[in-house]
Amino acid sequence: MIKVGVVGGTGYTGVELLRLLSRHPQVELVAITSRGEAGMAVSEMFPSLRGRVNLKFVTPQDAALDQCDAVFFATPNGIAMQQAAELVAAGVRVIDLAADFRITDVAEWEKWYGMKHAAPELVAEAVYGLPETSRDKIRKARVLANPGCYPTAVQLGFLPLVEAGVVELGNLIADAKSGVSGAGRKAEVHTLFPEAADSFKAYGVPGHRHLPEIRQGLTRFAGQPVGLTFVPHLTPLIRGIHATLYGRLTKDVDLQALYEQRFAGEPFVDVMPAGSHPETRSVRASNMCRIAVHRPQGGDTVVVLSVIDNLVKGAAGQAVQNLNIMFGFDESTGLDIVPVSP
Amino acid sequence: MIKVGVVGGTGYTGVELLRLLSRHPQVELVAITSRGEAGMAVSEMFPSLRGRVNLKFVTPQDAALDQCDAVFFATPNGIAMQQAAELVAAGVRVIDLAADFRITDVAEWEKWYGMKHAAPELVAEAVYGLPETSRDKIRKARVLANPGCYPTAVQLGFLPLVEAGVVELGNLIADAKSGVSGAGRKAEVHTLFPEAADSFKAYGVPGHRHLPEIRQGLTRFAGQPVGLTFVPHLTPLIRGIHATLYGRLTKDVDLQALYEQRFAGEPFVDVMPAGSHPETRSVRASNMCRIAVHRPQGGDTVVVLSVIDNLVKGAAGQAVQNLNIMFGFDESTGLDIVPVSP
Amino acid sequence: MIKVGVVGGTGYTGVELLRLLSRHPQVELVAITSRGEAGMAVSEMFPSLRGRVNLKFVTPQDAALDQCDAVFFATPNGIAMQQAAELVAAGVRVIDLAADFRITDVAEWEKWYGMKHAAPELVAEAVYGLPETSRDKIRKARVLANPGCYPTAVQLGFLPLVEAGVVELGNLIADAKSGVSGAGRKAEVHTLFPEAADSFKAYGVPGHRHLPEIRQGLTRFAGQPVGLTFVPHLTPLIRGIHATLYGRLTKDVDLQALYEQRFAGEPFVDVMPAGSHPETRSVRASNMCRIAVHRPQGGDTVVVLSVIDNLVKGAAGQAVQNLNIMFGFDESTGLDIVPVSP
Amino acid sequence: MIKVGVVGGTGYTGVELLRLLSRHPQVELVAITSRGEAGMAVSEMFPSLRGRVNLKFVTPQDAALDQCDAVFFATPNGIAMQQAAELVAAGVRVIDLAADFRITDVAEWEKWYGMKHAAPELVAEAVYGLPETSRDKIRKARVLANPGCYPTAVQLGFLPLVEAGVVELGNLIADAKSGVSGAGRKAEVHTLFPEAADSFKAYGVPGHRHLPEIRQGLTRFAGQPVGLTFVPHLTPLIRGIHATLYGRLTKDVDLQALYEQRFAGEPFVDVMPAGSHPETRSVRASNMCRIAVHRPQGGDTVVVLSVIDNLVKGAAGQAVQNLNIMFGFDESTGLDIVPVSP
Repeated sequence: MIKVGVVGGTGYTGVELLRLLSRHPQVELVAITSRGEAGMAVSEMFPSLRGRVNLKFVTPQDAALDQCDAVFFATPNGIAMQQAAELVAAGVRVIDLAADFRITDVAEWEKWYGMKHAAPELVAEAVYGLPETSRDKIRKARVLANPGCYPTAVQLGFLPLVEAGVVELGNLIADAKSGVSGAGRKAEVHTLFPEAADSFKAYGVPGHRHLPEIRQGLTRFAGQPVGLTFVPHLTPLIRGIHATLYGRLTKDVDLQALYEQRFAGEPFVDVMPAGSHPETRSVRASNMCRIAVHRPQGGDTVVVLSVIDNLVKGAAGQAVQNLNIMFGFDESTGLDIVPVSP
Repeated sequence: MIKVGVVGGTGYTGVELLRLLSRHPQVELVAITSRGEAGMAVSEMFPSLRGRVNLKFVTPQDAALDQCDAVFFATPNGIAMQQAAELVAAGVRVIDLAADFRITDVAEWEKWYGMKHAAPELVAEAVYGLPETSRDKIRKARVLANPGCYPTAVQLGFLPLVEAGVVELGNLIADAKSGVSGAGRKAEVHTLFPEAADSFKAYGVPGHRHLPEIRQGLTRFAGQPVGLTFVPHLTPLIRGIHATLYGRLTKDVDLQALYEQRFAGEPFVDVMPAGSHPETRSVRASNMCRIAVHRPQGGDTVVVLSVIDNLVKGAAGQAVQNLNIMFGFDESTGLDIVPVSP
Repeated sequence: MIKVGVVGGTGYTGVELLRLLSRHPQVELVAITSRGEAGMAVSEMFPSLRGRVNLKFVTPQDAALDQCDAVFFATPNGIAMQQAAELVAAGVRVIDLAADFRITDVAEWEKWYGMKHAAPELVAEAVYGLPETSRDKIRKARVLANPGCYPTAVQLGFLPLVEAGVVELGNLIADAKSGVSGAGRKAEVHTLFPEAADSFKAYGVPGHRHLPEIRQGLTRFAGQPVGLTFVPHLTPLIRGIHATLYGRLTKDVDLQALYEQRFAGEPFVDVMPAGSHPETRSVRASNMCRIAVHRPQGGDTVVVLSVIDNLVKGAAGQAVQNLNIMFGFDESTGLDIVPVSP
Repeated sequence: MIKVGVVGGTGYTGVELLRLLSRHPQVELVAITSRGEAGMAVSEMFPSLRGRVNLKFVTPQDAALDQCDAVFFATPNGIAMQQAAELVAAGVRVIDLAADFRITDVAEWEKWYGMKHAAPELVAEAVYGLPETSRDKIRKARVLANPGCYPTAVQLGFLPLVEAGVVELGNLIADAKSGVSGAGRKAEVHTLFPEAADSFKAYGVPGHRHLPEIRQGLTRFAGQPVGLTFVPHLTPLIRGIHATLYGRLTKDVDLQALYEQRFAGEPFVDVMPAGSHPETRSVRASNMCRIAVHRPQGGDTVVVLSVIDNLVKGAAGQAVQNLNIMFGFDESTGLDIVPVSP
């Protein structure tokens, strides 16, 4: 049993983290902070947690986070980098669900995120927490950068192809579609129901912050620079990401076998049978990533379909998976959720 | 550990039952029958169950259901009544999620369901499985009639008022709204996405099959005949029922206290704080019923808001709750699911 | 051809008004004001209007509204009451889509709207613009109070019953359901897509601002005080209101004939055949109100189903209908829109 | 004024055609056929058409279609090819909204559509009705093959690039997303609301019938064979297609100018300002196609975003546009619909 705190529990990744942690048998949830809502019962803001989470929001000062074994940051970008050093110094292991520690190149990070980084030295030691590629490093991490939602779906989808060196690396395409919860629980016009329902659009085509994160990952897998076009879209789902990935094959290879072997034994990656089309609802509310790989009409274009729940495997679930690895728990602890379908 | 079979696992209540039973620690799922799909892996039809349910659909003949401790019928109306007697004779306890055993008055049942009843003698002994009113009978039931979705939300909402005798009984109104999964997984035009999305309608105003079921329950609570107007509506939700209930008060009573006392200790009924407006998503995918009670402007009309997930507390979850009671398990076994919100 | 201005064109009633006015053959749209967006092309904010509305938003000062024949206020409550007097003095006819002039009892208005009324003298002369009850007054109105969305659906639904005096007046019930656009185009958390999609809730049960407006209307129809319980709900539609109305009959009457006669010749009220269940999509994007009347099981409860598009007959369309009446155009001018279904 | 008949008016393209034709000032709608529904009032099946279409469905035998000037086939594939010859012989001009006459290579058609073609000689003379490329031929067509929904969005999006010869032709990618009405008004499980709502999936990745149609069109534009990967997806919209198109540039070219020039004067193609992201709702219920063209980070990949309403520009609207061209009406007659947004 470890003591866990959550900084910023009022957004979608925050409440999802609470859903998962509230039934994690190895976790004692000791504090949930929110400056704005301090004093309010968590279950008043989130009635779905009535009887499950009996804490109130507290201010960061009152949270005694330095007494925790682990602290999650479910905050906007730019918060964790200001508070992590002190916690790490106190022996607390930090898991950041925002982007502060995801990009190793600090200058690149500052360009895309539009602010000065407050803790570049922690960026250097932070571990990028994609379990399927970095379990050993995650185990020892003091600062864990939890991957973004699009980056999780896209990297897992491309991973076998890029590692195996069977596609042209200069010209990969990721056409990704996200549910609206990916935009966060912020009062904004463009994500109101009447704006986002029954409509579909691309956004950020000139450049999206997840592009450098994905490119960094793919470059690591390949051991050389990778060219990527990344187009995100907003689709009328509450939860779910569907990434459709395109590459040109440079070798004739048994794609199905390649994927099955690469992910054999992975608890949260499911390679579907050949010919499958995974639906986002098949992973709804669960930490699973389901992948199918196609080669239409036997041509030289490979098409990969990769689906996750953006709030689980794309955020809070993967964060708990990383916590499990960091503390030596079974990797699936607290994550044994059967997807909710329909 | 008991052996459990499911007859008719291809509809929404069937797949929901499989979601719940697949993680029930006291249940071994031994057979799932479907004439039409025999031989197909369950997880091929329902990819959300990949790695969770490893059975194939079998024909009823191949299912050896008489070796089970309990058998669920997640079938259309009129099936369980034909097969229950043989199973009961073999010592199997039967839980019917359809309507075959819900209405005690067989003639009334035959009128509303448009067929001759095949097992009136079992109707006589069957127990109506609303745990909040009948735990003792449920414990010993050989044939359990699992309540309908609307009847669960409406009866729980009216229960304290009617039992306490504080409303006019001749003139109750239940204005209920259901998600589309309540119509079942049948190929029909009126529940296609383009028909049911972004639209709202009442249906069955002249008379709906759940009317006699609700009226029977309310009459039992009251000990005298009850007059009810029941208007169901279809709303663009996948899951969820919201019942808005109206009655005229005949006494001045502390409504909040009345409800809190009636449901004190109930694991699956949550009386919300005074002034609340429960949302269906606050119970999504869980077995919880949340209720709020209002008296607008202090007048003599009481308004009760009652929400459930129609596939869980309104069907499969309540069936598992009944199973737990019948076999002496803790009532929440396998039902410790935190609602999925957003 | 008349000159028309719109104050506050950035909300949902505003853009809907622009959709309708842009193809109204008797209207020249001369100015659309928005303090916040002055200088921006209207079609930049609303790409659906590209090629249809070529104006830019202007500040109220630059709008020369006093040169218009008519000005619509599609503003929040409390704006029109400050500006109407000056326009009226300049001979401009004012149509307010907000609530400033709807409630004759100024003290009552101030209680529900939480502000001091700035123009009580205009309230006295303002005409409540429900065409089906007040055409003659509308024709001559200088200040037109355009009815609210719920009040339109509920009043039209109850009108024949209350006028004919065939229901108990002390105990009417209106259970109404609205799409999310009814909450306006404001950046708020509770109407975000992930909050409002796939969920259903009641709100404002203790008291909603449309209650006094509806009660005032019903009282006028009846010629005596009317008791009403009004419960609004939020349902995952973009557009649409469905009102389910309940009353106790005091006389045996041919309800179908009563409704058909009352609305005979009305261009925008469609009494459906007996036994019908109107869907909100059957009026989507149009100015039609469709009504069905039921008497379940021949009892003494009458159930009326009334549907409108909240942005059209419940706001902008009814405002244009009123404009047509005020200026002597055919009442359907610019409103000959076939509902969009599916 | 011309006499028009519709064969097969019970599907989504049929009812949409009726919506448009019912207010077309040059069209007298004389017959709507449906074997299954003969005798039923059209407005009984489609209440949105009450007061707009006063015809009943008739059998084909009773329809006297040979007295019409034009007949639309809004039928499943394989019907028009059996009936067109007789109508053409009678001097009737035929517009087929299905696929019977779209593919010039009859063997290719038979392979993809799985049936023997009944009228190959009409295929030879049929005109593919994409107005933006073929107005002159359309004017004289006796048999008009109305393009498919995906093919319209994809061909219009690629047209300027391919005609101008500025992209690699061997490796184009079309990632397209469609609303569920594209699947038709057929009773099927996979398009039920609980299956298709709040979920997203690709389908037909190994091969979709619209692939040969699009490839044929692009090959015509290019004057040489074109290689295309086409991946369709189902997204929870009622209406709307969003095509995201990818190509590799072979020349440095002003993409914005290229698109604006190619579509200058087109009444139903709107090239959005540089940097735009068109939403499907910006064309909802209208015949418009909106296109934006991007070159992310100035690289050599061009990304085109193309949106249409699949039932209008992707079906019934384009069919009416073709009718207008064929009969010398203004091309926008009956199509002056402002998109419905929100």
